[in-house]
Order: sequence, then structure tokens, then C-alpha cells
Amino acid sequence: MDKKEAVEAIKKYVRAANYITTIQIYLQDNFLLKHNLNFEHIKPRLLGHWGTCPGINFVYGNLNYLIKKHNARILFVLGVGHGFPALQANLFLENSLSKYYKKAYKNLNGLAYIAKNFCWPYGFPSHSNPGAPGVILEGGELGYSLSTSYGAALDNPDLIVACLIGDGEAETGPLSASWHLNKFLDPTKNGVVLPILHLNGYKISGPTIFGRMSNKELSSLFYGYGYDPIIVEGDNIYENMINSLEYCYSSILKLKKSKVVAPRLPMIILKTPKGWTGIKELNGNKIEGNCLSHQVVAKNAKSDLTELKALEDWLISYNFNELFNGKFSKDIELVIPKLKYCMGMNEFVCKKLNLPSIRKIRKFYEEFNKPGESSSVSMIRIGKYLSEIFKLNNNFRLMSPDETYSNKLDDVFKNTKRCFVWPLEKWDKDFSSYGKVIEVLSEHCLQGITQGYILTGRHAVFSSYEAFVEIVSSMADQYEKFLKTSREVPWRKDVASFNYILTSSGWRQEHNGFSHQNPNFISGRLNKNGISKVYFPPDANSALVVLEECLKSRNRINVIVCGKTLEPLWLNLGEAEKEFKSGLMTWDFASDKNPDLVFVGIGDYLTKECLAAISYLKKYLPELRLRFVNVIEVSALGIGENKHLENYFTNDKPVIFNYEGYPHDIEALLFKFGNVSRFNVHGYIEKGSTTTPFDMHVRNKTDRFNLAIDALNILAKFSAVNIAKASNLIRIFKDKLKYHNEYIIKNGVDLPEVQDWKWERKF
Amino acid sequence: MDKKEAVEAIKKYVRAANYITTIQIYLQDNFLLKHNLNFEHIKPRLLGHWGTCPGINFVYGNLNYLIKKHNARILFVLGVGHGFPALQANLFLENSLSKYYKKAYKNLNGLAYIAKNFCWPYGFPSHSNPGAPGVILEGGELGYSLSTSYGAALDNPDLIVACLIGDGEAETGPLSASWHLNKFLDPTKNGVVLPILHLNGYKISGPTIFGRMSNKELSSLFYGYGYDPIIVEGDNIYENMINSLEYCYSSILKLKKSKVVAPRLPMIILKTPKGWTGIKELNGNKIEGNCLSHQVVAKNAKSDLTELKALEDWLISYNFNELFNGKFSKDIELVIPKLKYCMGMNEFVCKKLNLPSIRKIRKFYEEFNKPGESSSVSMIRIGKYLSEIFKLNNNFRLMSPDETYSNKLDDVFKNTKRCFVWPLEKWDKDFSSYGKVIEVLSEHCLQGITQGYILTGRHAVFSSYEAFVEIVSSMADQYEKFLKTSREVPWRKDVASFNYILTSSGWRQEHNGFSHQNPNFISGRLNKNGISKVYFPPDANSALVVLEECLKSRNRINVIVCGKTLEPLWLNLGEAEKEFKSGLMTWDFASDKNPDLVFVGIGDYLTKECLAAISYLKKYLPELRLRFVNVIEVSALGIGENKHLENYFTNDKPVIFNYEGYPHDIEALLFKFGNVSRFNVHGYIEKGSTTTPFDMHVRNKTDRFNLAIDALNILAKFSAVNIAKASNLIRIFKDKLKYHNEYIIKNGVDLPEVQDWKWERKF
Repeated sequence: MDKKEAVEAIKKYVRAANYITTIQIYLQDNFLLKHNLNFEHIKPRLLGHWGTCPGINFVYGNLNYLIKKHNARILFVLGVGHGFPALQANLFLENSLSKYYKKAYKNLNGLAYIAKNFCWPYGFPSHSNPGAPGVILEGGELGYSLSTSYGAALDNPDLIVACLIGDGEAETGPLSASWHLNKFLDPTKNGVVLPILHLNGYKISGPTIFGRMSNKELSSLFYGYGYDPIIVEGDNIYENMINSLEYCYSSILKLKKSKVVAPRLPMIILKTPKGWTGIKELNGNKIEGNCLSHQVVAKNAKSDLTELKALEDWLISYNFNELFNGKFSKDIELVIPKLKYCMGMNEFVCKKLNLPSIRKIRKFYEEFNKPGESSSVSMIRIGKYLSEIFKLNNNFRLMSPDETYSNKLDDVFKNTKRCFVWPLEKWDKDFSSYGKVIEVLSEHCLQGITQGYILTGRHAVFSSYEAFVEIVSSMADQYEKFLKTSREVPWRKDVASFNYILTSSGWRQEHNGFSHQNPNFISGRLNKNGISKVYFPPDANSALVVLEECLKSRNRINVIVCGKTLEPLWLNLGEAEKEFKSGLMTWDFASDKNPDLVFVGIGDYLTKECLAAISYLKKYLPELRLRFVNVIEVSALGIGENKHLENYFTNDKPVIFNYEGYPHDIEALLFKFGNVSRFNVHGYIEKGSTTTPFDMHVRNKTDRFNLAIDALNILAKFSAVNIAKASNLIRIFKDKLKYHNEYIIKNGVDLPEVQDWKWERKF
Repeated sequence: MDKKEAVEAIKKYVRAANYITTIQIYLQDNFLLKHNLNFEHIKPRLLGHWGTCPGINFVYGNLNYLIKKHNARILFVLGVGHGFPALQANLFLENSLSKYYKKAYKNLNGLAYIAKNFCWPYGFPSHSNPGAPGVILEGGELGYSLSTSYGAALDNPDLIVACLIGDGEAETGPLSASWHLNKFLDPTKNGVVLPILHLNGYKISGPTIFGRMSNKELSSLFYGYGYDPIIVEGDNIYENMINSLEYCYSSILKLKKSKVVAPRLPMIILKTPKGWTGIKELNGNKIEGNCLSHQVVAKNAKSDLTELKALEDWLISYNFNELFNGKFSKDIELVIPKLKYCMGMNEFVCKKLNLPSIRKIRKFYEEFNKPGESSSVSMIRIGKYLSEIFKLNNNFRLMSPDETYSNKLDDVFKNTKRCFVWPLEKWDKDFSSYGKVIEVLSEHCLQGITQGYILTGRHAVFSSYEAFVEIVSSMADQYEKFLKTSREVPWRKDVASFNYILTSSGWRQEHNGFSHQNPNFISGRLNKNGISKVYFPPDANSALVVLEECLKSRNRINVIVCGKTLEPLWLNLGEAEKEFKSGLMTWDFASDKNPDLVFVGIGDYLTKECLAAISYLKKYLPELRLRFVNVIEVSALGIGENKHLENYFTNDKPVIFNYEGYPHDIEALLFKFGNVSRFNVHGYIEKGSTTTPFDMHVRNKTDRFNLAIDALNILAKFSAVNIAKASNLIRIFKDKLKYHNEYIIKNGVDLPEVQDWKWERKF
């Protein structure tokens, strides 16, 4: 096929795709226009977005031709999720759809099937979704296509990821930042992302920013971002697109072969009219090339004759009968790659992750004689373990907003580096172009990369300050929705779980202050009640057990919350594994039989304060009968995976919780108990500033003394302790709080009694 | 002062500021180095970030000189919150600090006071914060300085907002997008933002992206964004900076006078070494000009003699005694503006907002005869009201991600337009360079602009799809922290509340599908339990009452959740006002005396389903005694503002809630009741797809039939209804659900019985 023939073939392909797109939106019958169009043929509800679709079809058709010509392996990431009818049309045309939906076979019945079921209850949704073959991004919430594409390209050296970005999406923050991700992929070791910025110029009711920038501004901007930008537009747009894609392809191949600093990879700026080939004008309004073609044009077509006629003329304009007579015309087929190369056939199997054994090698976990006697740092132990994973695997990545060091995970740099492909200086430490750690000060970028990486069959950990992971709460919500829907799609392959490690928690952000104290991300995960699990390992050994299990798990979101300071070890490995299995455990070394009151610690620092409260109470009132329960995984409490909670919380005794996050989380989970008056939940109540670590607890009443005071008040009410004794002790603890406050104001640091506290009490 | 003298004076100013910055971080005594430095003089905990500080001092000093020379009015917005000791040093030097902190007077005692109290418990925090004069941004969570600055500049024609952005912050998504906000401010009508991108090249443990881009890439990028970029660097950086600021100032004045399309305003790219003038090398490591100067350099200065000596040499290098002998030297004073022009003196008083009366004009609210008989659209009524506000005020803005039309607020375009200062086309509707509506597809930008606008004394509404406001949940969290701290600062002025209108709720995103269904933002607001109020007006009249009260309120975050579809009117204006006052109300028209069961509706669509459940139940079992309570403001339920909840929920009868968001929200709020077994909460349980509106309810069991079935099961358990009768009726309702499901799959739309339902039952 020479170029001219190719252009003609692609034009026919796009015409066919546009027709198939349009009938999905409008028709419930008469799909080939065998009869004059009438109201009966129109769906009762017209859904889907037309305006972006013809551009998608244009790009998909041209990419198909490129694939066919070069047997290139290309993954298509569609930012514009609203343009799903176009994606579906192409999946139908290339026949990958029928592999997953037998009724969608590439014939008239299949055509009718996809048209009828688009946006129909319990049919195909209006958006790109996990039910569509080859899709790794939902796209309903805009902004994440480019970072997801970069994630897919990482460590996939044979892959080109064609990422189609709308000019609406391009306005978002997450998308704006992710242009810079070209600085983190060495094309000689990784796949390459080919961004195609589709400027149709309009959003739902007005122009886009990018649509009104001059070509000089556009070229300048993307040159500045480090790309080699090519503008495709104008009368010969088909010829231009073929030539530009050829140029991009050869430029990519060249840069994949030659190792250079700051490789300037190509990107395409594609300018087409919005709603291209659709209705030009309706009721005196400009439709094509204007925002009025954004959603459904002629939306009264089921009741208004003028609009029906406009729709019919539009459909007829594609002359679909010339292209399809039960089969598609030969030249259309010439554009379509062999099935195995089709973009809808991209399937990624979850690669094996070789995990070092915590137990065998005996260098990750720490042994001790008595609980609380020795200390360790959870994040350092995790860092050692992650480092070993890097040694054993090539399909694993660590993502972090410039915090690998500050979160004490830098042991990983013994086995890998941070990647960066723009210029380095000789004093830069732990950087190289092939490093497996990505540090960019954009949680949005990291979340997107991680999603793309995982959904293409690999494994990753995202570590963040607890407070700032809230920046991506919305992305995590959307990803959770993607996973949830994926689980309901029978042919979707398992993927590794998305593992967050949240550290530098608010309780130890006493130095950075109020803005660094925010556990809201945890609440968001628990609200969803399904795909996410939130873990609070109480010490370094249990942190390792949790991490290992999270890395083994599939199709979930795991959140591990643990500290980076030197803290007591409470559990040996066997105990930690046991507690992990049940989600919670009574700690015998800190518990009496038949207790009058139960303390529950959730979170490492909160657990320590609970145990300190117990030791103070037992010191002054040895006759008190107390129990300590630690919760390592919160949803075990809430969604009833653990059936025997009365074994821990008793049936009727008062229970005091001390919790990492907002008390609301636990209160909602306890709701199912019915009688909740015996439960009392301490947690972060939004009191903070730059202060001392212990003062953070005092302000939020999660410290040992406030816990002990609370316990005494409750025990007195339940007559489990002599009231005079209780009052006396409460006074002692209140004095301690007062003295502590005076001490920190004078000395700037916590009281030695608090700093040096060690668990001693023997039960 | 000629330029050479000016340079020398500014150099001295910056030297002094650097010294004052450094002693805040390190010293608790010996502030003037009268004695050799020893361990006793060093604070026990070394906090604060040094690396960014000298750049801040350099910029502040140069801006001061510019202000002094031109009597310019400049507001300083510091993106780099971690650089607070530098900001504090400048506030001290210009003496604005002492206006608010008497002990911080510009003398030796004041110097000792600010040094000693920096990062001291109950002293000054480590970050920029509302306790610092002139501050409108905390800056702990990075990314929001530029959008906040644009918000401050809007409708403030005499103001220049100098926004200092670090190269760390510049990597974030929100910041990357906000460069484009130049397209929304006509400099002839508004203030101007002068962005200063400070490239010191490093983040906490490595190089920044921007620090490794070439000057050509940098200039190209910012030209592309629409700016006139000026790079300031090199040996003559002081001279360069003076000249560049002069150029910017005259360029700004020129553009303020001449109305042009796409005004290309200046911005500065400032390149300095990180930790400039600090320790050059320590223990063989490069410190200045490297990431190792990011936080505290020589952090063992309290125990390590080498480090102590390095610190002492560093401090001595400033030769502070030459600059200060109880007073600052004359040439330093020459750089400092008259007090009233000082940047720390920027105070903004909340402007008066003229509100149209809902009642008097009688054109906003709708009258009706009987509840449920007539219908209205909340968002249209709100649009009419907002439109009138635009007519009456010049200090009001509406922000929305391209959704003013789709959220049905377009009545506002009768009195204003959308602003855009890049090229417009003749078919663009409702756009002009002076419009008061800002539409940009970045919730982050809108949130930042709104914050900046409000904190400088004006009023705004931010309308968004309910699902996608979660994109800014983290920004809202940080803003809430800012407000909370502000309330504790006695001299902080009142500000208008931040008003969100959330519409296009998940319950009516049945067409856009699962990704458009997310009420998590509401949960986040309720978690904070303080500054935020979340309102669920049940109909259009109550939506107006809520909006008016929100616009009157101060220092809060208000979230109004209401629909954009045609829905029944339940309350007349007086009733709505009454319900607003108490937060909830029993609706007599749908209630029996002495009920056996109480339904509680929270949210417009959820209320309708409750009332439909009641009418079905009463139709089949007229003897049932039911009550309906509507909750208009959720925290009234939770934080005990309403003391008489038993008047609504009874003391012992079962209560069924039907709630807009996640059931967890309500369950946590009900926790305080102790015995919660009689409460049953329906809400969004994360079930969704593209389907019909009623099927969204059915999937989440918030529909009339599931509610009725739930009620019957409970009433049977409580023996308040005959079991056989209940079983029989449950079967009828289950059949209705089954029939509905079959109907929508066949017809694609909801059953007429559901679509046409109207409240009829008379109690």
C-alpha cells in the first residue's frame, strides 16, 4: 500500500468507526438505516459524549496502520473516558471485543449488540472501564492518563504506550505535572510513551485553555517540558498524521538505541474540530467545531422531527453501506493489524515476585527476650526487606515523593538507585538512569505511575508521609472503583495489590506542625468497606509480616501505617504472624484474666501509650484487672471477618480504644455492636502544632495519663475501683500532665520520665 | 541611592536576615555571639529548614527595595512554608511583627525572643502559619501558592502579588496547572501576580526537575505558559535582581494600562545555590549548593565539636555586629519600606456582601399549596439568587470546573460572564475579559483561587460535581487547618466562609457511571468535627435558605449538597427557615403521633425515597404509625448542638436513616447515643454503574421498596405489626423490585410507577 492508498484506507476506517460510534449513542434499532429513521429507532435516553469521539477514531485508525506496517507493540491509553463509544467501535472493528464478548462478533448481529447495549442498564457503561479489553484506566475523573502510561512503559522495553490526552484533561494539575515524567524513563531500558494531545478546542460549555494557545506557545511549552513536539492539523491532516507517526516511530527507535542524557522524545499535538464530521449547525447554532458538540448533539431526536432529520443526514453522510455489507470492505481490513497485535489484545499477566523469607535469612526481623525490652525501627527493617526484593527482582518499583531517605528506607540504595535521565552532577548520590526508585514531588504522578505499573503485571510500593497521601485520596478512590469493577469482569487477570506505606505519621510530625498531621486517607479507605485493608503493625517485626503478606496479596489496596522512630519490640515473628491472621490479639504479657476493663491499641505509637497507661495503673493499683488487645488490621473489627470479637472485647466490660486516626473510623465500625456505651475511642482530634512528640498525644488525649484518667473514671462509674482511690490517682496523673506541660515550655523537650519510659510490669 | 549603593544596602539587609534566620534554628542563648559558641547555647531540638531560607531573604530584601522606591503595594505569598524562619526574620526586620507580638520589637530583646521561641513548644511553629502577619497560605502541603496568589490578585487592581515558588513545589500537579491562571486575569481590572520561581536546585535528598532543566528549556516552558520569563542568576545576581524587578514592575504597569489579548506578563526564574552563604562543606560532603543543606545543617552541633565550630564560623561570617548594635545600620533601614507599605502589614477586612432578600423580592423561592404537589430545581433557584448577587456586588466570584451550565447555574450569565483573556471566537458564549465566573478544569486551581480571594476579604462560591470535589479534599483539609489556627489568633480578621455547592450527586450520575459516584468529601468534612458544616437541603426553597445563611456566615467551610433535577417542593420558606435553625425537623404532613418507627431523610433524593416508602407503607397498612424527620445539617445530629434529639428520634423506637453519603458518617455521629441497635442507616454503599436513576437507589438499598422492607422487618421484630401482614407486604415490595429490574433491562428507563410517583398520603 503506498501512502496515498493508506490515507484512503484510513479515511474509510475512520468513517466506519465514526458511524459505529454514533449508532451506539442514538439507535436501538435500524442500525444500518435500512429504513427511514423514525422516533422508534431512537433510544429513550441518549448518553455518551460525541464531541471527542471522531478524534479518538482518527488516532486509533492511524495507530492501527502504524502497528500493521511495523508489527509494533502499542498499548492505547485513553484519557478521555467519556469517549468510550469510540473506543468500543475500534475494539469491535479490530475484533478483539469478540474475544471477551461473544455476542460482539464483527458482523451485523455484533454491531446491533454493541449499539443496543451501550449505556443500557446492565449493558456497557458510558465510560471506558475495566470491562473493555486492553483498558488500564477508567478515565471518568480526568488527569491520570499520562502518569498511568508512564507506569505501563516502565520496565517494558518493547512497548510503546500511545496516550491520548484531551485538552480538557490537559488543564488538570495531575496531568500538567506528569509531562515531566519523561525525566524518569531511560528509553534504552524501558518502553516509551508517545503522548498525543488532542486539541479539539472545547470543553462542555466553552473553549479550552490549550485550544486558544498559539502554535508558538504550544511548541514552546512542550519543548520546555523536554519533548520534540509535532503539530498535526489542517487540510492534509490524514497525510500529516501518517508522516508524523512515522517520524515519531523512527525517532523513538533511534533514541532507544543511543544512550543520551535528556533524550528528547516526540509528542504529537493534534488539532481537529470538536465533533468532527458530525452535525455542522442546528437551530442556527454552530455545532461542529464548537462546545455544543461536546455531549449528545440533537438530544431531542426522539421527539423532534428537525433533530431526527439532522441525525439521519449525519448518519447517512458516512455512507456506511459502502463500507459494510455484513463484512467490512477490504481496504478497511488493510488498516487493521493481525489480531495478536491489536491494541485491545493487550493483556498483562501478573509477574512472579520473588520474596525473601523473613524467617529463613533471619536478617530482617529482630529477636528479643522480653516484650518491650529491646527496640527497632519499622521503616529501617522494611527498607532492608525492600532492598532484598530489588536484588531478587526486575519487576518491582518503589515510589516516593523525595522521601526515601527521610522515611529511612535508604537501605534500598544498596541494591538499586533513583532514576533520573536529565543531567546529573558528580555529587548526586544514589541516582542513575536505570534506578528502580522514582522520586518526584508529586503524589499524583506517583499514584498514576504505580497504577500503570501494577495494571501491566508488575509490583510496587508507594511510600508517603501519612498526611500528604491525602493528596491522592481521590485517585485512590477511583483506582479502588477500577479494582472493584475488575473483580466482576471474569476475564480480567489478577494484579498485584497496590501497597501504600504511610509513615512520618502525625504523631511524629510534632516538628513539622499542624499541616503535617492528617490521617484522613485512612478514613477514606475504611469508608469503602471492601477492596482496601488498613494495617497498623505495632512494631518492626509485625511490620515485616504485614509487608510480606501485602506483597503476596492480589487485587487489593493495602495501607500499612507505621513509624520511622526507634520504638519497642512487642511481638516475635510467630506472634506477629498469629496476630496478622486474626486481625487482632490479646497480648498476654499485659493482660489479666477476667479483666474489669480492656485497652485496645491501634497503631504503634498509640499502642505504646496504652501499654504505658496500663503500667502506670498497675503500679499504683496492682489489684486492677486489665487486658490489652492490639488491632493490627482495622477492617477485621468492622466487617465481621472476625467472628469472635467478644473473646477480645468481652461481652460487657468497658473498652478504651487508642487509635492512630480519627475516632469516627472506629466508632462507625463499632456500630454493629448495638450497645456501644461501653466503648470509648481516643484518637486524633485535630489538635496539633509544632511541639514535642508526647505533647501531640496530650493535646489529643491519646497519652498514657489521659488514658489512665479515662480508665479510672470509667472503672469508678462501674464500681470496679474504689472511688476515693480513683480520685486520688486521677489527681496524681493530672499533676503529671501539668508538670509535663511546664517542663516542655521550659526545656523544649519531653520529660525524661516520658522519654525514658520502658515496659516493666509483669502480669 | 544609586544602584550601586542600593545593591550594597540590599546585600547588608540580606546578610542580617540570614543571620537572624540562622539563630532561630540553632540558638537558645548567646544570640549576638558575645561569647564563644558552646553546647549550652544550642537548642535541644534543631528544627526548621535552612536550605530555602537565604533565597527567601534575597527575594524579600529586593522586594522591599522595590516597594520603598515606588511605594508599590505588594503582597508576599510564600510557597515554601518550611522556610518560615526566613519570613519571620524579615517580619522582624521590617518591624511589622511587633505590631502583633509586642515582645518581638526590633531590638536585642526582640531578637532573643523570636530566636528562642522559634520551634519551641507553644512558641512559633516551624512553618509559615496564620500567626504570622501578612500570611494567607500555610505552605506545609506544597502546590497551592500560585493559585492562592491569583485569587488574591482578582478584583484587587492596585495589588501586585509576589509569589515565591520553590522548585520542589513546582513539581506538584496543582502548581503545574496554576501557571495557566494568567489566562483568567485581565491586568487592567485586576491585580497582577509576579511569580518568582526559586530554583535552588534541590529537594530533601536530591536534585529537582527544574534544577536540571537547561535555561533554554526553562525559558521555553514559561513562554509557552504565556509569560515573559527572566532568568536571574550568576555572579552579578544582586544587580540582575534589581534590574529584573525594575523591568517587571514597569512591564506590569504598562500592561495594566493597555488592554491587550493574551497579555504576556513577566515572571522571574531565580537561580541561587541551596543553603547559599551557609556551611560550604562538612565532613567531606558538599553542603552549600547541594541537597544536604535542605534541613538543618550540622545537626549534631549540640554534641559534636566539629559541627559546633562549623556553625560558629558560619554565624561569624555574617559579621552581624557590623549590621546591628541594638539598632540596625542605616543602610539596612534604607531598604525597608515605610511601615504601612511593609508586606507583613497586609491586612484584609472582609468586604460587605449585599445579599438579595429571598423573601422580599419573591422571585427566588417558590410557593405551593401542598407539600410534594409542585416541583422545582434547587440549582436553578440557586443560579437565580447568585445572579442577583453579581448584580449587587463587585466582590463576589463563582468558581467551577466548566460546569456552570451543566450544573444549571447559567442564570448568572444574565449579570456576569466567564472571564478569559486569551483569544476568543465570535461564537463563544458568555465570555469576556471581565467576567466574574472562573471556569478551569482544575479543581486544585479553583480551590486555591477561592482561598486567596476569600482570605483577602472577598466572597465566593465553588460549585462542583459531588464526586470530583474529592480531588481537593487534601486542600480543603489544609484550608480547614488554616481557619482553625486563625480562629486562635486574636488579631486575625473575620473572613467569609468558603462555600461549596456540591451537585450532580452520585444518585443522579446514573448516566456517567461508577466513577462519578463518590461522596467521600462529605465524610472528610465531618471527620474534622469543627470548622465545616455540611447541609442537605431537601428541596429548592430550603436550598435558598441554606445558601443565604452560608453567605452570611464567617470563618467556616460550608458544604451545600443539592440536586439539579426537577424535584418536589416540601417546605415553604418559613418552614425551611425553622428547620435550618434546629438542623432537623419532624415533617408533620408525613408523620403520625406516637410513631412505632421513625424514618430520617438526609439529602434531597434520599428524602424523596423515604417519603415514598412511607406512602407505600401507609397505603397497604394504614394502621402503621410512622414519623418522618428530615435532617438539613448533619453535624447538628453529631456534635450535640441540638440538645433534644429524643424529640425527633424518640427514646426507644426504631429509626431508619436514608443518607446521601457513606453510612459510616451517620453511624459515627450516632455513637454518642450508646444504645444504637435501634438505628439502621442506609446510604451509598459503593454500588454503581451506568444505569437508571432509580436503579442507583435499588443497588444501594436506598430506594422506597428496600426502605419499606427494612421497616417491615424491624416492625415485625418489635411486634409493632402483624408478622403475616408484614411478610405478605414484603413479598409485594420484592415483586415490585423484581419487576422494576426486568422493566429497565427491557426498556432502558425507569418504571412509570416510579418516575411518576407523587406524594399523596394525607396524615
